[in-house]
Amino acid sequence: MTDRCNAPIGVFDSGVGGLTVAREIMRNLPEENIVYFGDTARVPYGSKSRDTVLRYSRQIIRFLRTQEVKAIVIACNTASAYALDEVEKELDIPIIGVVKPGARVACEVTKNKKIGVIATEATIHSGIYTNFIKNQDPEIQVIGKACPLFVPLVEEGWLKDSVTFEVAGRYLRELMDQDIDTLILGCTHYPLLRSTLREVVGDKVSLVNPAYETARELKELLKEQNLTNLQDQKEARKYMFYVSDLAEKFRKFADSILPFDVNTTKQISIEEY
Amino acid sequence: MTDRCNAPIGVFDSGVGGLTVAREIMRNLPEENIVYFGDTARVPYGSKSRDTVLRYSRQIIRFLRTQEVKAIVIACNTASAYALDEVEKELDIPIIGVVKPGARVACEVTKNKKIGVIATEATIHSGIYTNFIKNQDPEIQVIGKACPLFVPLVEEGWLKDSVTFEVAGRYLRELMDQDIDTLILGCTHYPLLRSTLREVVGDKVSLVNPAYETARELKELLKEQNLTNLQDQKEARKYMFYVSDLAEKFRKFADSILPFDVNTTKQISIEEY
Repeated sequence: MTDRCNAPIGVFDSGVGGLTVAREIMRNLPEENIVYFGDTARVPYGSKSRDTVLRYSRQIIRFLRTQEVKAIVIACNTASAYALDEVEKELDIPIIGVVKPGARVACEVTKNKKIGVIATEATIHSGIYTNFIKNQDPEIQVIGKACPLFVPLVEEGWLKDSVTFEVAGRYLRELMDQDIDTLILGCTHYPLLRSTLREVVGDKVSLVNPAYETARELKELLKEQNLTNLQDQKEARKYMFYVSDLAEKFRKFADSILPFDVNTTKQISIEEY
Repeated sequence: MTDRCNAPIGVFDSGVGGLTVAREIMRNLPEENIVYFGDTARVPYGSKSRDTVLRYSRQIIRFLRTQEVKAIVIACNTASAYALDEVEKELDIPIIGVVKPGARVACEVTKNKKIGVIATEATIHSGIYTNFIKNQDPEIQVIGKACPLFVPLVEEGWLKDSVTFEVAGRYLRELMDQDIDTLILGCTHYPLLRSTLREVVGDKVSLVNPAYETARELKELLKEQNLTNLQDQKEARKYMFYVSDLAEKFRKFADSILPFDVNTTKQISIEEY
Protein backbone atom coordinates (compact mmCIF):
# COMPACT_ATOMS: atom_id res chain seq x y z
CA MET A 1 0.00 0.00 0.00
CA THR A 2 2.82 2.43 0.88
CA ASP A 3 3.92 2.29 -2.73
CA ARG A 4 0.58 3.51 -3.99
CA CYS A 5 0.33 6.20 -1.29
CA ASN A 6 3.72 7.39 -2.41
CA ALA A 7 2.54 7.82 -5.99
CA PRO A 8 1.92 11.35 -7.28
CA ILE A 9 -1.36 13.12 -7.83
CA GLY A 10 -2.01 13.97 -11.47
CA VAL A 11 -3.30 17.49 -12.04
CA PHE A 12 -4.19 18.79 -15.48
CA ASP A 13 -5.43 21.94 -17.13
CA SER A 14 -5.67 23.47 -20.59
CA GLY A 15 -2.64 25.59 -19.76
CA VAL A 16 -1.19 27.61 -16.92
CA GLY A 17 -4.42 28.46 -15.08
CA GLY A 18 -4.57 25.13 -13.28
CA LEU A 19 -1.43 26.08 -11.43
CA THR A 20 -3.68 28.02 -9.05
CA VAL A 21 -5.21 24.63 -8.19
CA ALA A 22 -1.80 22.93 -7.94
CA ARG A 23 -0.76 25.76 -5.62
CA GLU A 24 -3.67 25.09 -3.28
CA ILE A 25 -2.86 21.36 -3.27
CA MET A 26 0.77 22.15 -2.42
CA ARG A 27 -0.37 24.41 0.43
CA ASN A 28 -3.00 22.12 1.86
CA LEU A 29 -1.49 18.69 1.13
CA PRO A 30 2.23 19.42 1.56
CA GLU A 31 3.00 15.71 1.87
CA GLU A 32 1.84 14.87 -1.66
CA ASN A 33 3.84 14.55 -4.88
CA ILE A 34 2.33 16.11 -8.01
CA VAL A 35 2.58 15.55 -11.76
CA TYR A 36 1.09 18.60 -13.52
CA PHE A 37 0.18 18.65 -17.20
CA GLY A 38 -0.72 21.91 -18.99
CA ASP A 39 -2.06 21.51 -22.53
CA THR A 40 -0.38 24.72 -23.70
CA ALA A 41 -0.42 23.65 -27.37
CA ARG A 42 -4.20 23.48 -27.42
CA VAL A 43 -5.15 26.15 -24.87
CA PRO A 44 -7.81 27.50 -24.42
CA TYR A 45 -10.46 24.84 -23.91
CA GLY A 46 -13.06 27.49 -23.04
CA SER A 47 -14.05 28.08 -26.65
CA LYS A 48 -13.99 24.44 -27.78
CA SER A 49 -16.78 21.88 -28.12
CA ARG A 50 -17.66 19.12 -25.68
CA ASP A 51 -16.37 16.37 -28.01
CA THR A 52 -13.03 18.07 -28.50
CA VAL A 53 -12.50 18.74 -24.79
CA LEU A 54 -13.47 15.16 -23.94
CA ARG A 55 -11.02 13.76 -26.52
CA TYR A 56 -8.21 15.98 -25.22
CA SER A 57 -8.98 15.03 -21.60
CA ARG A 58 -8.79 11.31 -22.43
CA GLN A 59 -5.39 11.79 -24.08
CA ILE A 60 -4.08 13.63 -21.04
CA ILE A 61 -5.39 11.01 -18.64
CA ARG A 62 -3.63 8.31 -20.69
CA PHE A 63 -0.42 10.32 -20.33
CA LEU A 64 -0.90 10.80 -16.58
CA ARG A 65 -1.46 7.04 -16.17
CA THR A 66 2.01 6.47 -17.63
CA GLN A 67 3.26 8.53 -14.66
CA GLU A 68 1.46 6.08 -12.34
CA VAL A 69 -0.63 8.68 -10.57
CA LYS A 70 -2.79 7.51 -7.66
CA ALA A 71 -5.54 10.11 -8.26
CA ILE A 72 -6.38 12.80 -10.80
CA VAL A 73 -7.57 16.37 -10.39
CA ILE A 74 -9.11 18.08 -13.44
CA ALA A 75 -7.93 21.60 -12.64
CA CYS A 76 -9.86 23.13 -15.52
CA ASN A 77 -13.47 24.21 -15.24
CA THR A 78 -14.23 23.52 -18.90
CA ALA A 79 -12.80 20.00 -18.80
CA SER A 80 -14.53 19.39 -15.45
CA ALA A 81 -17.78 20.51 -17.06
CA TYR A 82 -17.43 18.53 -20.27
CA ALA A 83 -15.34 15.46 -19.41
CA LEU A 84 -15.50 14.49 -15.72
CA ASP A 85 -18.70 12.44 -15.76
CA GLU A 86 -17.54 10.45 -18.81
CA VAL A 87 -13.95 9.75 -17.81
CA GLU A 88 -14.94 8.91 -14.23
CA LYS A 89 -16.71 5.81 -15.56
CA GLU A 90 -13.59 4.73 -17.46
CA LEU A 91 -11.14 4.96 -14.54
CA ASP A 92 -10.19 2.73 -11.61
CA ILE A 93 -8.50 5.53 -9.64
CA PRO A 94 -10.25 8.51 -8.00
CA ILE A 95 -10.76 11.60 -10.15
CA ILE A 96 -12.27 14.93 -9.14
CA GLY A 97 -12.90 18.18 -10.94
CA VAL A 98 -13.03 21.77 -9.71
CA VAL A 99 -16.71 22.40 -10.38
CA LYS A 100 -18.46 20.29 -7.75
CA PRO A 101 -16.30 21.33 -4.75
CA GLY A 102 -16.79 25.00 -5.61
CA ALA A 103 -20.52 24.63 -6.24
CA ARG A 104 -21.04 22.66 -3.02
CA VAL A 105 -19.43 25.36 -0.88
CA ALA A 106 -21.36 28.12 -2.65
CA CYS A 107 -24.59 26.33 -1.72
CA GLU A 108 -23.50 26.27 1.92
CA VAL A 109 -22.45 29.91 1.92
CA THR A 110 -25.39 31.64 0.19
CA LYS A 111 -28.07 33.10 2.44
CA ASN A 112 -30.41 34.75 -0.06
CA LYS A 113 -30.09 31.79 -2.45
CA LYS A 114 -28.71 33.87 -5.30
CA ILE A 115 -25.36 32.66 -6.60
CA GLY A 116 -23.37 34.26 -9.42
CA VAL A 117 -20.93 32.24 -11.54
CA ILE A 118 -18.24 33.83 -13.70
CA ALA A 119 -16.34 31.55 -16.08
CA THR A 120 -15.39 30.93 -19.71
CA GLU A 121 -18.04 30.77 -22.40
CA ALA A 122 -17.85 26.97 -22.53
CA THR A 123 -18.31 26.53 -18.77
CA ILE A 124 -21.27 28.93 -18.68
CA HIS A 125 -22.73 27.42 -21.85
CA SER A 126 -22.44 23.89 -20.41
CA GLY A 127 -24.74 24.92 -17.55
CA ILE A 128 -22.77 22.63 -15.25
CA TYR A 129 -22.68 24.95 -12.25
CA THR A 130 -26.40 25.67 -12.57
CA ASN A 131 -27.30 22.00 -12.92
CA PHE A 132 -25.17 20.91 -9.99
CA ILE A 133 -26.38 23.71 -7.70
CA LYS A 134 -30.03 23.12 -8.64
CA ASN A 135 -29.57 19.44 -7.79
CA GLN A 136 -28.38 20.43 -4.33
CA ASP A 137 -31.16 22.97 -3.80
CA PRO A 138 -33.73 23.70 -6.50
CA GLU A 139 -34.63 27.01 -4.83
CA ILE A 140 -31.24 28.56 -5.47
CA GLN A 141 -31.11 30.95 -8.38
CA VAL A 142 -27.87 30.77 -10.41
CA ILE A 143 -26.81 33.66 -12.63
CA GLY A 144 -23.94 32.85 -14.99
CA LYS A 145 -21.76 35.29 -16.90
CA ALA A 146 -18.98 34.51 -19.40
CA CYS A 147 -15.97 36.82 -18.96
CA PRO A 148 -13.68 36.14 -21.95
CA LEU A 149 -11.40 39.14 -21.31
CA PHE A 150 -10.33 38.06 -17.82
CA VAL A 151 -7.84 35.38 -18.90
CA PRO A 152 -5.86 37.63 -21.27
CA LEU A 153 -5.96 40.43 -18.67
CA VAL A 154 -4.42 38.05 -16.11
CA GLU A 155 -1.84 36.88 -18.63
CA GLU A 156 -0.93 40.53 -19.34
CA GLY A 157 -0.32 40.87 -15.62
CA TRP A 158 -2.91 43.67 -15.34
CA LEU A 159 -4.27 42.27 -12.09
CA LYS A 160 -4.97 45.49 -10.17
CA ASP A 161 -5.52 47.84 -13.04
CA SER A 162 -8.07 50.47 -14.07
CA VAL A 163 -8.85 48.60 -17.31
CA THR A 164 -9.43 45.35 -15.46
CA PHE A 165 -11.58 47.20 -12.92
CA GLU A 166 -13.71 48.71 -15.71
CA VAL A 167 -14.07 45.36 -17.53
CA ALA A 168 -14.95 43.59 -14.27
CA GLY A 169 -17.50 46.30 -13.51
CA ARG A 170 -19.26 45.68 -16.81
CA TYR A 171 -19.15 41.91 -16.57
CA LEU A 172 -20.44 41.89 -12.99
CA ARG A 173 -23.06 44.62 -13.27
CA GLU A 174 -25.92 42.30 -14.16
CA LEU A 175 -24.99 39.84 -11.41
CA MET A 176 -24.92 42.67 -8.86
CA ASP A 177 -28.20 44.04 -10.19
CA GLN A 178 -29.72 40.66 -9.43
CA ASP A 179 -28.51 40.91 -5.85
CA ILE A 180 -26.24 37.85 -5.64
CA ASP A 181 -24.62 37.26 -2.23
CA THR A 182 -22.13 34.62 -3.44
CA LEU A 183 -19.83 34.60 -6.47
CA ILE A 184 -18.04 31.50 -7.77
CA LEU A 185 -14.73 32.25 -9.51
CA GLY A 186 -15.39 29.54 -12.10
CA CYS A 187 -12.15 29.75 -14.08
CA THR A 188 -8.73 28.92 -12.71
CA HIS A 189 -7.24 32.28 -13.71
CA TYR A 190 -9.82 34.29 -11.79
CA PRO A 191 -8.49 33.87 -8.23
CA LEU A 192 -5.55 35.99 -9.40
CA LEU A 193 -8.07 38.83 -9.92
CA ARG A 194 -9.47 38.36 -6.43
CA SER A 195 -8.64 41.80 -5.05
CA THR A 196 -10.04 43.65 -8.09
CA LEU A 197 -13.18 41.50 -7.99
CA ARG A 198 -13.53 42.16 -4.27
CA GLU A 199 -13.39 45.89 -4.94
CA VAL A 200 -16.09 45.62 -7.62
CA VAL A 201 -18.54 43.46 -5.66
CA GLY A 202 -17.96 44.98 -2.21
CA ASP A 203 -17.85 43.23 1.16
CA LYS A 204 -21.30 41.70 1.17
CA VAL A 205 -20.65 39.15 -1.56
CA SER A 206 -18.77 35.96 -0.62
CA LEU A 207 -16.15 34.96 -3.19
CA VAL A 208 -15.79 31.19 -3.64
CA ASN A 209 -12.47 29.91 -4.99
CA PRO A 210 -12.99 26.37 -6.36
CA ALA A 211 -9.22 25.77 -6.33
CA TYR A 212 -9.16 25.95 -2.53
CA GLU A 213 -12.32 23.88 -2.13
CA THR A 214 -10.95 21.24 -4.52
CA ALA A 215 -7.74 20.88 -2.51
CA ARG A 216 -9.81 20.41 0.65
CA GLU A 217 -12.02 17.82 -1.00
CA LEU A 218 -8.99 15.99 -2.42
CA LYS A 219 -7.54 15.75 1.09
CA GLU A 220 -10.75 14.14 2.38
CA LEU A 221 -10.91 11.77 -0.59
CA LEU A 222 -7.34 10.54 -0.11
CA LYS A 223 -7.99 9.99 3.59
CA GLU A 224 -11.18 8.00 2.93
CA GLN A 225 -9.45 5.77 0.39
CA ASN A 226 -6.28 5.34 2.48
CA LEU A 227 -4.22 7.00 -0.19
CA THR A 228 -2.64 9.81 1.85
CA ASN A 229 1.13 9.90 1.49
CA LEU A 230 2.66 8.80 4.79
CA GLN A 231 6.26 8.93 3.62
CA ASP A 232 8.79 10.67 5.87
CA GLN A 233 8.27 14.36 5.16
CA LYS A 234 11.97 15.06 5.40
CA GLU A 235 12.36 13.47 2.01
CA ALA A 236 11.84 16.10 -0.68
CA ARG A 237 8.44 16.24 -2.31
CA LYS A 238 8.50 15.85 -6.03
CA TYR A 239 6.67 18.26 -8.31
CA MET A 240 6.90 17.46 -12.03
CA PHE A 241 5.57 19.75 -14.75
CA TYR A 242 4.73 18.71 -18.32
CA VAL A 243 3.34 20.83 -21.15
CA SER A 244 2.42 20.24 -24.79
CA ASP A 245 4.13 23.40 -26.05
CA LEU A 246 6.47 26.26 -25.12
CA ALA A 247 7.87 24.90 -21.87
CA GLU A 248 9.88 28.08 -21.33
CA LYS A 249 6.89 30.42 -21.32
CA PHE A 250 5.05 28.09 -18.98
CA ARG A 251 7.99 28.06 -16.60
CA LYS A 252 7.91 31.86 -16.40
CA PHE A 253 4.23 31.99 -15.55
CA ALA A 254 4.64 29.16 -13.05
CA ASP A 255 7.47 31.02 -11.37
CA SER A 256 5.22 34.04 -10.93
CA ILE A 257 2.46 31.97 -9.28
CA LEU A 258 4.25 29.26 -7.31
CA PRO A 259 6.36 29.85 -4.20
CA PHE A 260 9.45 28.20 -5.74
CA ASP A 261 11.31 27.94 -9.04
CA VAL A 262 10.04 25.45 -11.59
CA ASN A 263 13.10 23.95 -13.19
CA THR A 264 11.70 20.69 -14.35
CA THR A 265 9.15 21.55 -17.06
CA LYS A 266 9.23 19.08 -19.93
CA GLN A 267 7.49 19.29 -23.26
CA ILE A 268 5.73 16.16 -24.58
CA SER A 269 3.69 15.30 -27.70
CA ILE A 270 0.27 14.87 -26.16
CA GLU A 271 -1.30 13.87 -29.48
CA GLU A 272 0.60 10.59 -29.29
CA TYR A 273 -1.34 9.46 -26.22
CA MET B 1 -6.06 25.01 -68.40
CA THR B 2 -9.63 26.28 -67.90
CA ASP B 3 -10.13 23.52 -65.38
CA ARG B 4 -7.28 24.66 -63.20
CA CYS B 5 -8.30 28.33 -63.46
CA ASN B 6 -11.72 27.30 -62.31
CA ALA B 7 -10.33 25.66 -59.19
CA PRO B 8 -10.79 27.46 -55.87
CA ILE B 9 -8.25 29.42 -53.87
CA GLY B 10 -7.47 27.85 -50.50
CA VAL B 11 -7.40 30.33 -47.62
CA PHE B 12 -6.56 29.28 -44.08
CA ASP B 13 -6.26 30.80 -40.65
CA SER B 14 -6.09 29.69 -37.02
CA GLY B 15 -9.76 30.66 -36.68
CA VAL B 16 -12.14 33.40 -37.69
CA GLY B 17 -9.65 36.25 -38.11
CA GLY B 18 -8.61 35.19 -41.60
CA LEU B 19 -12.13 35.98 -42.78
CA THR B 20 -10.96 39.61 -43.03
CA VAL B 21 -8.50 38.34 -45.66
CA ALA B 22 -11.14 36.20 -47.38
CA ARG B 23 -13.36 39.29 -47.44
CA GLU B 24 -10.71 41.33 -49.26
CA ILE B 25 -10.22 38.51 -51.78
CA MET B 26 -13.98 38.38 -52.37
CA ARG B 27 -14.04 42.16 -52.91
CA ASN B 28 -10.99 42.39 -55.13
CA LEU B 29 -11.15 39.07 -56.99
CA PRO B 30 -14.91 38.61 -57.32
CA GLU B 31 -14.40 36.02 -60.07
CA GLU B 32 -12.61 33.53 -57.80
CA ASN B 33 -13.95 30.56 -55.84
CA ILE B 34 -12.68 30.11 -52.29
CA VAL B 35 -12.26 27.23 -49.86
CA TYR B 36 -11.68 28.67 -46.38
CA PHE B 37 -10.39 26.62 -43.46
CA GLY B 38 -10.42 28.01 -39.88
CA ASP B 39 -8.59 25.90 -37.30
CA THR B 40 -11.09 26.77 -34.57
CA ALA B 41 -10.22 23.68 -32.50
CA ARG B 42 -6.62 24.80 -32.06
CA VAL B 43 -6.97 28.59 -32.16
CA PRO B 44 -4.99 30.70 -31.26
CA TYR B 45 -1.68 30.09 -33.02
CA GLY B 46 -0.26 33.34 -31.62
CA SER B 47 0.93 31.76 -28.40
CA LYS B 48 2.25 28.51 -29.91
CA SER B 49 5.74 27.47 -30.95
CA ARG B 50 7.19 27.44 -34.46
CA ASP B 51 7.20 23.62 -34.63
CA THR B 52 3.57 23.35 -33.61
CA VAL B 53 2.39 26.04 -36.03
CA LEU B 54 4.39 24.44 -38.85
CA ARG B 55 2.90 21.01 -38.14
CA TYR B 56 -0.64 22.42 -38.05
CA SER B 57 -0.06 24.36 -41.30
CA ARG B 58 1.12 21.22 -43.09
CA GLN B 59 -2.00 19.34 -41.99
CA ILE B 60 -4.24 22.13 -43.25
CA ILE B 61 -2.42 22.32 -46.58
CA ARG B 62 -2.90 18.56 -47.00
CA PHE B 63 -6.62 19.09 -46.41
CA LEU B 64 -6.81 22.00 -48.85
CA ARG B 65 -5.07 19.89 -51.51
CA THR B 66 -7.93 17.38 -51.23
CA GLN B 67 -10.16 20.31 -52.31
CA GLU B 68 -7.97 20.73 -55.41
CA VAL B 69 -7.10 24.36 -54.78
CA LYS B 70 -5.03 26.16 -57.43
CA ALA B 71 -3.29 28.47 -54.96
CA ILE B 72 -3.11 28.94 -51.18
CA VAL B 73 -3.24 32.06 -49.02
CA ILE B 74 -2.00 31.78 -45.44
CA ALA B 75 -4.38 34.30 -43.92
CA CYS B 76 -2.74 34.13 -40.50
CA ASN B 77 0.23 36.25 -39.55
CA THR B 78 1.64 33.69 -37.15
CA ALA B 79 1.49 30.86 -39.68
CA SER B 80 2.88 33.18 -42.37
CA ALA B 81 5.74 33.99 -40.02
CA TYR B 82 6.49 30.45 -38.93
CA ALA B 83 5.46 28.20 -41.82
CA LEU B 84 5.46 29.97 -45.20
CA ASP B 85 9.14 29.61 -46.09
CA GLU B 86 9.12 25.91 -45.23
CA VAL B 87 5.88 24.86 -46.90
CA GLU B 88 6.63 26.93 -50.00
CA LYS B 89 9.49 24.54 -50.78
CA GLU B 90 7.20 21.53 -50.45
CA LEU B 91 4.46 22.76 -52.82
CA ASP B 92 3.96 22.81 -56.59
CA ILE B 93 1.19 25.44 -56.47
CA PRO B 94 1.62 29.12 -55.55
CA ILE B 95 1.31 30.01 -51.88
CA ILE B 96 1.48 33.46 -50.29
CA GLY B 97 1.19 34.73 -46.74
CA VAL B 98 -0.05 38.02 -45.34
CA VAL B 99 3.26 39.24 -43.95
CA LYS B 100 5.27 40.08 -47.06
CA PRO B 101 2.53 42.02 -48.93
CA GLY B 102 1.87 44.14 -45.84
CA ALA B 103 5.55 44.71 -45.13
CA ARG B 104 6.30 45.62 -48.76
CA VAL B 105 3.62 48.31 -48.84
CA ALA B 106 4.71 49.70 -45.46
CA CYS B 107 8.23 50.15 -46.90
CA GLU B 108 6.77 52.10 -49.81
CA VAL B 109 4.57 54.26 -47.59
CA THR B 110 6.94 55.29 -44.79
CA LYS B 111 8.67 58.64 -45.19
CA ASN B 112 10.62 58.93 -41.94
CA LYS B 113 11.61 55.26 -42.11
CA LYS B 114 9.98 54.39 -38.79
CA ILE B 115 7.42 51.60 -39.03
CA GLY B 116 5.38 50.21 -36.14
CA VAL B 117 4.05 46.63 -36.17
CA ILE B 118 1.28 45.43 -33.87
CA ALA B 119 0.56 41.70 -33.80
CA THR B 120 0.34 38.63 -31.60
CA GLU B 121 3.20 37.65 -29.32
CA ALA B 122 4.33 34.91 -31.71
CA THR B 123 4.43 37.18 -34.77
CA ILE B 124 6.37 39.87 -32.90
CA HIS B 125 8.65 37.28 -31.30
CA SER B 126 9.38 35.69 -34.69
CA GLY B 127 10.83 39.01 -35.89
CA ILE B 128 9.47 38.26 -39.35
CA TYR B 129 8.21 41.78 -40.12
CA THR B 130 11.48 43.30 -38.93
CA ASN B 131 13.60 40.86 -40.93
CA PHE B 132 11.62 41.28 -44.11
CA ILE B 133 11.51 45.08 -43.87
CA LYS B 134 15.25 45.29 -43.06
CA ASN B 135 15.93 43.17 -46.13
CA GLN B 136 14.07 45.69 -48.26
CA ASP B 137 15.75 48.69 -46.65
CA PRO B 138 18.23 48.29 -43.79
CA GLU B 139 17.75 51.93 -42.79
CA ILE B 140 14.15 51.46 -41.76
CA GLN B 141 13.58 51.17 -38.04
CA VAL B 142 10.88 48.66 -37.06
CA ILE B 143 9.19 48.85 -33.66
CA GLY B 144 7.07 45.83 -32.78
CA LYS B 145 4.46 45.54 -30.06
CA ALA B 146 2.45 42.47 -29.05
CA CYS B 147 -1.19 43.33 -28.28
CA PRO B 148 -2.72 40.16 -26.77
CA LEU B 149 -5.93 41.87 -25.61
CA PHE B 150 -7.02 43.02 -29.07
CA VAL B 151 -8.30 39.66 -30.30
CA PRO B 152 -10.60 39.01 -27.33
CA LEU B 153 -11.78 42.64 -27.46
CA VAL B 154 -12.75 42.17 -31.13
CA GLU B 155 -14.43 38.87 -30.32
CA GLU B 156 -16.42 40.60 -27.53
CA GLY B 157 -17.58 43.04 -30.21
CA TRP B 158 -16.14 46.02 -28.26
CA LEU B 159 -14.80 47.60 -31.44
CA LYS B 160 -15.46 51.28 -30.71
CA ASP B 161 -15.38 51.22 -26.95
CA SER B 162 -13.76 53.21 -24.16
CA VAL B 163 -11.99 50.10 -22.82
CA THR B 164 -10.59 49.26 -26.24
CA PHE B 165 -9.53 52.88 -26.68
CA GLU B 166 -7.70 52.83 -23.33
CA VAL B 167 -6.01 49.48 -24.08
CA ALA B 168 -5.00 50.67 -27.56
CA GLY B 169 -3.61 53.87 -26.06
CA ARG B 170 -1.35 51.88 -23.74
CA TYR B 171 -0.22 49.43 -26.38
CA LEU B 172 0.54 52.16 -28.92
CA ARG B 173 2.11 54.72 -26.60
CA GLU B 174 5.66 53.50 -27.05
CA LEU B 175 5.27 53.30 -30.82
CA MET B 176 3.94 56.86 -30.92
CA ASP B 177 6.72 58.02 -28.59
CA GLN B 178 9.17 56.71 -31.16
CA ASP B 179 7.48 58.77 -33.84
CA ILE B 180 6.36 56.05 -36.29
CA ASP B 181 4.64 57.31 -39.43
CA THR B 182 3.34 53.91 -40.58
CA LEU B 183 1.59 51.17 -38.60
CA ILE B 184 1.11 47.61 -39.85
CA LEU B 185 -2.01 45.89 -38.49
CA GLY B 186 -0.15 42.59 -38.21
CA CYS B 187 -3.00 40.37 -37.01
CA THR B 188 -6.09 39.54 -39.02
CA HIS B 189 -8.48 40.71 -36.30
CA TYR B 190 -6.99 44.19 -36.10
CA PRO B 191 -8.54 45.75 -39.24
CA LEU B 192 -11.85 45.47 -37.36
CA LEU B 193 -10.38 47.93 -34.80
CA ARG B 194 -9.35 50.31 -37.55
CA SER B 195 -11.44 53.31 -36.48
CA THR B 196 -10.39 53.06 -32.81
CA LEU B 197 -6.74 52.71 -33.85
CA ARG B 198 -7.12 55.67 -36.20
CA GLU B 199 -8.41 57.76 -33.30
CA VAL B 200 -5.46 56.73 -31.10
CA VAL B 201 -2.69 57.34 -33.65
CA GLY B 202 -4.18 60.42 -35.34
CA ASP B 203 -4.12 61.37 -39.01
CA LYS B 204 -0.38 61.46 -39.56
CA VAL B 205 0.22 57.73 -39.24
CA SER B 206 -0.59 55.52 -42.25
CA LEU B 207 -2.38 52.31 -41.32
CA VAL B 208 -1.40 49.32 -43.46
CA ASN B 209 -3.90 46.46 -43.71
CA PRO B 210 -2.06 43.32 -44.89
CA ALA B 211 -5.37 41.68 -45.79
CA TYR B 212 -5.97 44.23 -48.52
CA GLU B 213 -2.39 44.13 -49.78
CA THR B 214 -2.48 40.33 -49.86
CA ALA B 215 -5.60 40.30 -52.02
CA ARG B 216 -3.90 42.72 -54.42
CA GLU B 217 -0.77 40.60 -54.57
CA LEU B 218 -2.79 37.43 -55.08
CA LYS B 219 -4.49 39.05 -58.06
CA GLU B 220 -1.12 39.85 -59.65
CA LEU B 221 0.19 36.39 -58.93
CA LEU B 222 -2.78 34.64 -60.56
CA LYS B 223 -2.45 36.89 -63.60
CA GLU B 224 1.28 36.16 -63.96
CA GLN B 225 0.72 32.42 -63.72
CA ASN B 226 -2.34 32.41 -66.00
CA LEU B 227 -4.48 31.13 -63.19
CA THR B 228 -7.17 33.84 -63.13
CA ASN B 229 -10.65 32.41 -63.28
CA LEU B 230 -12.12 33.28 -66.68
CA GLN B 231 -15.36 31.40 -66.17
CA ASP B 232 -18.58 33.19 -67.05
CA GLN B 233 -19.31 35.43 -64.09
CA LYS B 234 -23.01 34.79 -64.31
CA GLU B 235 -22.38 31.40 -62.85
CA ALA B 236 -22.45 31.64 -59.06
CA ARG B 237 -19.13 31.83 -57.30
CA LYS B 238 -18.59 29.15 -54.74
CA TYR B 239 -17.42 29.93 -51.23
CA MET B 240 -16.89 26.91 -48.98
CA PHE B 241 -16.08 27.16 -45.28
CA TYR B 242 -14.51 24.42 -43.17
CA VAL B 243 -13.56 24.50 -39.49
CA SER B 244 -12.04 22.06 -37.01
CA ASP B 245 -14.54 22.83 -34.23
CA LEU B 246 -17.78 24.60 -33.38
CA ALA B 247 -19.04 25.31 -36.89
CA GLU B 248 -22.06 27.18 -35.52
CA LYS B 249 -20.06 29.77 -33.61
CA PHE B 250 -17.85 30.32 -36.65
CA ARG B 251 -20.89 30.85 -38.82
CA LYS B 252 -22.12 33.60 -36.50
CA PHE B 253 -18.85 35.48 -36.58
CA ALA B 254 -18.59 35.02 -40.34
CA ASP B 255 -22.08 36.44 -40.78
CA SER B 256 -21.04 39.56 -38.87
CA ILE B 257 -17.98 40.11 -41.10
CA LEU B 258 -18.98 38.93 -44.55
CA PRO B 259 -21.54 40.62 -46.78
CA PHE B 260 -23.65 37.48 -47.12
CA ASP B 261 -24.89 34.55 -45.03
CA VAL B 262 -22.56 31.61 -44.54
CA ASN B 263 -24.72 28.53 -44.70
CA THR B 264 -22.18 26.02 -45.76
CA THR B 265 -19.75 25.70 -42.86
CA LYS B 266 -18.62 22.12 -42.30
CA GLN B 267 -16.65 20.68 -39.43
CA ILE B 268 -13.78 18.28 -40.24
CA SER B 269 -11.19 16.35 -38.19
CA ILE B 270 -8.06 18.22 -39.17
CA GLU B 271 -5.83 15.91 -37.10
CA GLU B 272 -6.51 13.15 -39.61
CA TYR B 273 -4.72 15.02 -42.40
